[in-house]
Amino acid sequence: MNALTLNDARTLIAAAEKRAQEIGQPMNIAVVDAGGNLIAHVRMDGAWIGSVDISISKAWTARAFDISTRDLAENSQPGQQFFGISASNAGKVMIFAGGIPITRDGTVVGGLGVSGGSGEQDQTVAEAGVAAL
Amino acid sequence: MNALTLNDARTLIAAAEKRAQEIGQPMNIAVVDAGGNLIAHVRMDGAWIGSVDISISKAWTARAFDISTRDLAENSQPGQQFFGISASNAGKVMIFAGGIPITRDGTVVGGLGVSGGSGEQDQTVAEAGVAAL
Amino acid sequence: MNALTLNDARTLIAAAEKRAQEIGQPMNIAVVDAGGNLIAHVRMDGAWIGSVDISISKAWTARAFDISTRDLAENSQPGQQFFGISASNAGKVMIFAGGIPITRDGTVVGGLGVSGGSGEQDQTVAEAGVAAL
Amino acid sequence: MNALTLNDARTLIAAAEKRAQEIGQPMNIAVVDAGGNLIAHVRMDGAWIGSVDISISKAWTARAFDISTRDLAENSQPGQQFFGISASNAGKVMIFAGGIPITRDGTVVGGLGVSGGSGEQDQTVAEAGVAAL
Repeated sequence: MNALTLNDARTLIAAAEKRAQEIGQPMNIAVVDAGGNLIAHVRMDGAWIGSVDISISKAWTARAFDISTRDLAENSQPGQQFFGISASNAGKVMIFAGGIPITRDGTVVGGLGVSGGSGEQDQTVAEAGVAAL
Repeated sequence: MNALTLNDARTLIAAAEKRAQEIGQPMNIAVVDAGGNLIAHVRMDGAWIGSVDISISKAWTARAFDISTRDLAENSQPGQQFFGISASNAGKVMIFAGGIPITRDGTVVGGLGVSGGSGEQDQTVAEAGVAAL
Repeated sequence: MNALTLNDARTLIAAAEKRAQEIGQPMNIAVVDAGGNLIAHVRMDGAWIGSVDISISKAWTARAFDISTRDLAENSQPGQQFFGISASNAGKVMIFAGGIPITRDGTVVGGLGVSGGSGEQDQTVAEAGVAAL
Repeated sequence: MNALTLNDARTLIAAAEKRAQEIGQPMNIAVVDAGGNLIAHVRMDGAWIGSVDISISKAWTARAFDISTRDLAENSQPGQQFFGISASNAGKVMIFAGGIPITRDGTVVGGLGVSGGSGEQDQTVAEAGVAAL
């Protein structure tokens, strides 16, 4: 009963989109379910086409390891314990800011990924998204 | 000025979703732009997870060759002129019904792909989608 | 609460293994959860190494489309409505017998895949597996 | 006669699982044979879905180069002799702790891979596993 619905995903995306408009940076925004499978994706007008894949992969990564991609980034730098993890899972592991696990009642039920700006911009848009649930 | 916007994509998806609800079959629905790049995707609650990729690939195929995937299917059977085309483009070419080019003022401006039911169901939902523009 | 556990997967695999031993054909046996993600895999001594991937992909396919791969096979022959589906999802769609959805209380909660013998052998081993839950 | 059997793999996995339970961290655990081919894999309840691939790849890497992935990590940092090796073999080379070669009578007969926690946690679980043979 905790499963994310398409309506949930739309709520998350709307909140993220609103924040992207506020900061004036068009974004790709993606939501995956608990199994890591895509529920919904949007590319705002003018957003990078190279970020379609990245937004989906960030959403997947956040759920796959139950961690924000910004936190994963710290552990994946040269010399750190997960350096090299980005080569796994057929290149789907994104190790920079913009992916955040979606939790409900303390359980991770999916992931949200944002790509289209600086790391800081992606992060603030993703945070606005997950805050909507 | 003919370029598909996210709003256009949402209009197309809403019309397709409505038809999917009418026939009682949850679907994956995807829209790509003239460059073949994803603008938006939704997976209706209960739709097959294996159809995420297929809906996006059908949308891409319809634009990539400016043909419906149902028509492409006829040319891709054993012994026909395009048999084997599904091995190209890293597996993105879908050769069964559900993908339709999106046209505006006589120009192909994108593709819509639907996956989640029988070929006939996918086709009727895709047709309802493109009719909305 | 319907989610498949590792214990469930082991129960399914044990039943499949027993059937494989009865018919004297070593098999690869895999179980995925509702999200299509692998829970457990075994390769019985002497089973084909080429069937590691196939067993996992059959399990995934059965869940991805909520259908047995034997039934999907019929719809994926030349001229049929899903011909060409095997090119999708990065080659993970298997369209021959041996993959069966796992259901509990009427809901599909995963998939079981068997590969290592003839289609008939794979099928009987998979059937024995899913019957154990 | 040195070849790892499915029973051997289960012994290794059981020992690793026991250690994972002791430290309270659910893990993915995989065993490959001398040919680098998967014999068995388990994902403990609650373990990361992104670690399915990583555990299998760590097991493969440990056998592919007859070295623990922790030791390989040291040689794969920027400026070191194997920097970039993780781009080879289609992304199967994992260069962080958790993969250990399995030896019998002084010969490497396979690899064990663990993924699901910190590098230190993965390593202690993998060590417990290979110690069981």
